[in-house]
Amino acid sequence: MQKNYIMAPGPTPVPEDVLLEIAKPIIHHRTNQYQEIFKKANEGLKYIFKTSNDIFTFASSGTGAMEAATVNLLSKGDKAIVVRGGKFGERFDEICKAYGIETIPIDVEWGKAVDPADIKKRLNENKGVKAVFATLCETSTGTKNDIEGIAGIVKSTNAALVVDAVSGLGADDLRTDEWGVDVVCSGSQKGMMLPPGLAFLSASKKAFDMMSKSDLPKYYFDLKAYKKSLDKNDVPWTPAVGLVRGLCKSMDMIKAEGIDNVLARHLRLAEATRDAVENLGLDLFSSSPSNAVTAVKVPDGVDGQALVKTMRNKYGVTIAGGQGHVKGKIFRIAHLGYMIEFDTLSAISALEIVLKEMGYKFKVGSGVGAALESFTTQKKSSRPVNV
Amino acid sequence: MQKNYIMAPGPTPVPEDVLLEIAKPIIHHRTNQYQEIFKKANEGLKYIFKTSNDIFTFASSGTGAMEAATVNLLSKGDKAIVVRGGKFGERFDEICKAYGIETIPIDVEWGKAVDPADIKKRLNENKGVKAVFATLCETSTGTKNDIEGIAGIVKSTNAALVVDAVSGLGADDLRTDEWGVDVVCSGSQKGMMLPPGLAFLSASKKAFDMMSKSDLPKYYFDLKAYKKSLDKNDVPWTPAVGLVRGLCKSMDMIKAEGIDNVLARHLRLAEATRDAVENLGLDLFSSSPSNAVTAVKVPDGVDGQALVKTMRNKYGVTIAGGQGHVKGKIFRIAHLGYMIEFDTLSAISALEIVLKEMGYKFKVGSGVGAALESFTTQKKSSRPVNV
Repeated sequence: MQKNYIMAPGPTPVPEDVLLEIAKPIIHHRTNQYQEIFKKANEGLKYIFKTSNDIFTFASSGTGAMEAATVNLLSKGDKAIVVRGGKFGERFDEICKAYGIETIPIDVEWGKAVDPADIKKRLNENKGVKAVFATLCETSTGTKNDIEGIAGIVKSTNAALVVDAVSGLGADDLRTDEWGVDVVCSGSQKGMMLPPGLAFLSASKKAFDMMSKSDLPKYYFDLKAYKKSLDKNDVPWTPAVGLVRGLCKSMDMIKAEGIDNVLARHLRLAEATRDAVENLGLDLFSSSPSNAVTAVKVPDGVDGQALVKTMRNKYGVTIAGGQGHVKGKIFRIAHLGYMIEFDTLSAISALEIVLKEMGYKFKVGSGVGAALESFTTQKKSSRPVNV
Repeated sequence: MQKNYIMAPGPTPVPEDVLLEIAKPIIHHRTNQYQEIFKKANEGLKYIFKTSNDIFTFASSGTGAMEAATVNLLSKGDKAIVVRGGKFGERFDEICKAYGIETIPIDVEWGKAVDPADIKKRLNENKGVKAVFATLCETSTGTKNDIEGIAGIVKSTNAALVVDAVSGLGADDLRTDEWGVDVVCSGSQKGMMLPPGLAFLSASKKAFDMMSKSDLPKYYFDLKAYKKSLDKNDVPWTPAVGLVRGLCKSMDMIKAEGIDNVLARHLRLAEATRDAVENLGLDLFSSSPSNAVTAVKVPDGVDGQALVKTMRNKYGVTIAGGQGHVKGKIFRIAHLGYMIEFDTLSAISALEIVLKEMGYKFKVGSGVGAALESFTTQKKSSRPVNV
């Protein structure tokens, strides 16, 4: 018998109750019944985003929300600072360029967080920057950026701060209103405990003011159309009814647990994983590790791609390998969404089994032992944490 | 006890087996397991689209596929002919204008099909037209356009024919390759028997040639990225895994029934509905009725909006009212997807009950009687049909 553990940083496991909600018979979206569900889901999103801003829901992947942020806020030839510290930071750069935005890239070594002072420097050097694009958790490297620090710098300028929190939301703390984040982009298939297919975007007053001046072409992602509908608990195009029903359910579950308890749970799982891999003699890839996903360097003599494949195919544990130039050099274990201590212990156990099979030298049990030690002593490490 | 009948033209009922497929535990998309599912789903789509062209699947509503067609084929300042005979024809016009395309509209009275000769005339009058946008079933009016006739005209020109088959696909015959339709746009929540959340687009060689020259900005809907992935049974952004699993299942069901049998079933339900409403003394709204949805004029003295609301709220039968300037003046009963004779009879029965309550004079039972007569005699009417 094999059980499947989805421990990659998205898509993530979906609670059975949410799956069953999604499997309910379809209802029509132009009805009070649907609008009540949508309204409740929106209230849940605001609670998790820690915002009173409007939040828009798209039928799309998270990339759709990133494009929506770009095309709704900016105009042709605008300048934007883009933090490129991994694949998803690079994506913002690509989207901006596709729409004729002049980007000012800040290239950060993969696995390192951006220094907010670098953003301040670029803002001072380049007058008239309209937006700063940053990533809460850079999924490709397991790195958390200091969004609070960045927001503290950007909010006193005329630029809007746009944060990709696709994988970070619900794992690394994000205080949208308290910190002053103008636009937060996220997706359904990570901390929100849903299948892929929905994307979310919150927009501040500053963002709305920019929207009214934006001249980039758009239609499907035109937030003016969404805003007009949102005020009636409606959407301009046919929504993904089933997924939105699931969203309402998952928001209920997160509210019942409490968002800060959810964040603390992600911290517990991430801390235990870091302790486990270090006790196995492995090195963390990131110097600013996220609680969404832990990136680990593949030790010398081990084939990183074979490691990931064997864990999945032979033991049913799906973790992720590296992307881009770190392909085969790192592996990534997620802590995202519907996961508890036993899931993390299973992933570490599978990792130990496969490392052993691949000839890596270590004391079997030292990884799970360290994780269990972390869980039972509720150890708080000295590493930067969110909560 | 109330049962719910979703008889509006989208979203439509989803078979229980498809819902349960969607409710299966999430799998990761970068795996052979997912790619096999995606490959099989694509083969099913090609069978239903009657094409050997590539078909792209987006996480979006059908409007996303319409935007994808526009931004991938055209360049700024290009000229395009747009058939505007209802809300969805108008949408193509809006999308084109949002991207700086010069549109040459053909305004067709709502409820009438476009005369292909009018398209020929505009093509002759306007040199260098790059695309013709038409609608298979104009959902807002229940009208079927003569795509075969239009394709016969467009295919000898340099223009691409783009057809919105969001509601028409699987209900009104569409022979993509035989007729020479360059781009077909569709969505999941109509004849495909799925929840909303997926959109589809097929592209001919002529369309691909145009894509290589298109300069309109795009990212999420950039077909070059999708094409690069499709050749590996992959997608560039995280796909809506659950819905694609459901798609694979619904494609299996349609293949088992046979696409031409599916079309014949839609014809039977549409014919019976037309006979029923005419026998109730009501008039069809469209002079070229689609087999996807039947639009009916609200008789004098009856409140059209109240009729639709009462059918839904009191009897659980969701039909659609009119949109735009025919709001309150027509109602629409769909025959789309997972529907058989007993569903149609239930809708007509509910219609009779509510018409009676609202004081309309007719012989109770004359609608369902005519429908049953149609089913039992397999009457073929003289109206234009597809199969």
